[in-house]
Amino acid sequence: MPDGLVVGLLGHGTVGAGVVRLLREHADQIAVRAGVPMRLGPVAVRDLARHSGAGLPRLTDDPRAVVAAEDVDVVVEVMGGVDPARALVTSALQRGCSVVTANKALIARHGAQLRALAAASGARLEYEAAVAGGVPIIKPLRESLAGDRVRRVLGILNGTTNYILTRMSEDAGSFADALADAQRLGYAEADPSADVEGHDAAQKAAILASLAFDATVTDADVYREGITGVTTTDIAHAARMGYVVKLLAIAEQADGRVGARVHPALVPASHPLAAVRDAYNAVFVEGEAAGSLMFYGRGAGAMPTASAVVGDLVTVARALLAGEAPPKTLLRARAEPAQVPVADVATAVVQAYVLLDVADEPGVLAAVAGAFGERSVSIRSVWQEGRGETAQLLLITHATLEGDLRATLDRLRTLPTVRDVASVLRVEGGEA
Amino acid sequence: MPDGLVVGLLGHGTVGAGVVRLLREHADQIAVRAGVPMRLGPVAVRDLARHSGAGLPRLTDDPRAVVAAEDVDVVVEVMGGVDPARALVTSALQRGCSVVTANKALIARHGAQLRALAAASGARLEYEAAVAGGVPIIKPLRESLAGDRVRRVLGILNGTTNYILTRMSEDAGSFADALADAQRLGYAEADPSADVEGHDAAQKAAILASLAFDATVTDADVYREGITGVTTTDIAHAARMGYVVKLLAIAEQADGRVGARVHPALVPASHPLAAVRDAYNAVFVEGEAAGSLMFYGRGAGAMPTASAVVGDLVTVARALLAGEAPPKTLLRARAEPAQVPVADVATAVVQAYVLLDVADEPGVLAAVAGAFGERSVSIRSVWQEGRGETAQLLLITHATLEGDLRATLDRLRTLPTVRDVASVLRVEGGEA
Repeated sequence: MPDGLVVGLLGHGTVGAGVVRLLREHADQIAVRAGVPMRLGPVAVRDLARHSGAGLPRLTDDPRAVVAAEDVDVVVEVMGGVDPARALVTSALQRGCSVVTANKALIARHGAQLRALAAASGARLEYEAAVAGGVPIIKPLRESLAGDRVRRVLGILNGTTNYILTRMSEDAGSFADALADAQRLGYAEADPSADVEGHDAAQKAAILASLAFDATVTDADVYREGITGVTTTDIAHAARMGYVVKLLAIAEQADGRVGARVHPALVPASHPLAAVRDAYNAVFVEGEAAGSLMFYGRGAGAMPTASAVVGDLVTVARALLAGEAPPKTLLRARAEPAQVPVADVATAVVQAYVLLDVADEPGVLAAVAGAFGERSVSIRSVWQEGRGETAQLLLITHATLEGDLRATLDRLRTLPTVRDVASVLRVEGGEA
Repeated sequence: MPDGLVVGLLGHGTVGAGVVRLLREHADQIAVRAGVPMRLGPVAVRDLARHSGAGLPRLTDDPRAVVAAEDVDVVVEVMGGVDPARALVTSALQRGCSVVTANKALIARHGAQLRALAAASGARLEYEAAVAGGVPIIKPLRESLAGDRVRRVLGILNGTTNYILTRMSEDAGSFADALADAQRLGYAEADPSADVEGHDAAQKAAILASLAFDATVTDADVYREGITGVTTTDIAHAARMGYVVKLLAIAEQADGRVGARVHPALVPASHPLAAVRDAYNAVFVEGEAAGSLMFYGRGAGAMPTASAVVGDLVTVARALLAGEAPPKTLLRARAEPAQVPVADVATAVVQAYVLLDVADEPGVLAAVAGAFGERSVSIRSVWQEGRGETAQLLLITHATLEGDLRATLDRLRTLPTVRDVASVLRVEGGEA
């Protein structure tokens, strides 16, 4: 790279165009901070005609040509999706070319193999933009907290669902209304399932769990519930008790196993995560020495994501200029990620909010309490409201095993006086 | 460093002891993440007898011996204070030995010279722990946001004053009561002036301003007001209007100049900084591309600070293993920090809360409004409460120049109907 670091770009959608814009507009500052100017090399797009006016001299519709170009020092992958990104990134890393990617699906599914490939070839693989967009969380976890031990990570990692839950909470609207509002504003896709069913958050949870605990956790290992079942009644009950409802991604380590789960949860209104509104993201980290930390910001959007990509490019440039990719001993350590097993979600310690529709007759509370008692699930508080024939019974448990909670719910469903288990939400982040 | 990186320690107070504890208890994890084991070398203390039971085999009362020791790869400076830390750190850097320091006073005063020394000798100088304790903010500003442009940094950087303001706000107690409470809990010193007069926050503001804007800002350049003048009346007025009062450190760039100031300010209750309670710290960064980011956590305490120091040690170890300190071209860039001039605080754009004790008679409002009008300071809202002979008049201005605000206040003091300018606070972070 005699006259600058050459960046090959895979994809020129909104994020790719944002990267090009930052490289152009902030060129001087980037050169100072990276220690070398950055030059845009080949750019691969699907439809040449659509991007012909973007002033990209080396436009191509062959992504393999970008990865194979001899003058490319680092490949930026912002095309998204597992295939063909996986083959392209693999090919770049195999030839020792560093890669910066914003691709959460790719890293969540194949991060361990790609990290091992990078380690073997001496290339860098950076993916700050894959989790929480413009919010620095990968580097803080991997470097700033390198000397600490992370106990637990709680994240609001999906802006769409956080926007929907914020609207439901502040406007007392239904899930359907809030979703329609999010779609109107462009926060939610026409098919919103990747967001509202928690798939997107689960991918990010897998990445954070792998990093925080030096483990290999894929999105398939993450227990997942979306927010489609959350009702305005749940949100109102939660508010009355001093909680807000958030879709949380949780990564934790206990008894030598790593657990990762995504589900809606009641969070105390005084908890820093409760103040994360609208489409914002936040990651709350409990470090053994550092204590509670939180990282907050825009989790999506072209420019925040592009900012994270260019930050990674500067990191790669500095490493390349230092004459080498990461230290070999570290590479060896990285190439063999610790085989920390993944925990069954049934072993997770949870606290639950359980809303039941029950018959409004004597003995119901005794029967319900008995079902909890059979599995030694201890009840912290109970609230009952009669409605004539039926009543609503709301219970908050003390901390218990997820497995015991599920067995209790199964038992409750068999009770003749329990008409419906209307809602089950976990409670995280302490007492309200 | 054939069998490990040797760490020389200057100071073995609570932070130093925390560093030793992390190096011992997390030794395996640190070796994997750093790529090399870390070994504790010589440790300098003032009073040998006091530390003789700490199991430190190379204890000395001569800090120069630590800096001069041939086998020491990196010096950790946690003694605090400008002297003799400055001479010791200078001496280490001059001989090419990397330094990790938690010393905010030293970096705020002499950071530019020390960074230049490191650049010249190829050593690393890391100081994550100097600002906001265990919260990663230096590395995110320097690396993750390297491709972005920072517009403004708003920080709650002093835990003691944030604790005092939280108590005044939530318990409606006086400053004196809240200070006594903070002293009882060990959050405030017997002589609390470094905290309550804003000196500590000003040092951290200088460091953040220098980093965010590639400038040379020392603590002497920071405009500073403490919280001793904040009253329960101010806090109650602020709350009624939807604001909380915080001691803010502000670094901003406008018209090619960098400004840094520390003063109490009204922050909208909906702003993420408003939710930062008790002794917590937070840094809110407005990036051009990344948007609003916030970093939150424990700003002080032995273990959070030690966690940041050990994170820096891992960074240094990886750089040393990569065969070199930072790239030479970058070093050259760093050795000559951009000569961005420091702005006069009179040119800062501020919004103000002004509380006046006035005579309760006709024409007062017209006279007061006239004083604001003379300097074209526009008034956003006015609130008046009669108390018999006198009245309280509360005004919130629109955005104006600090210089015009001051001239207006001087003019108000000359008006016969204005008995007292009781309080002047800035308003930051938008409308409530």
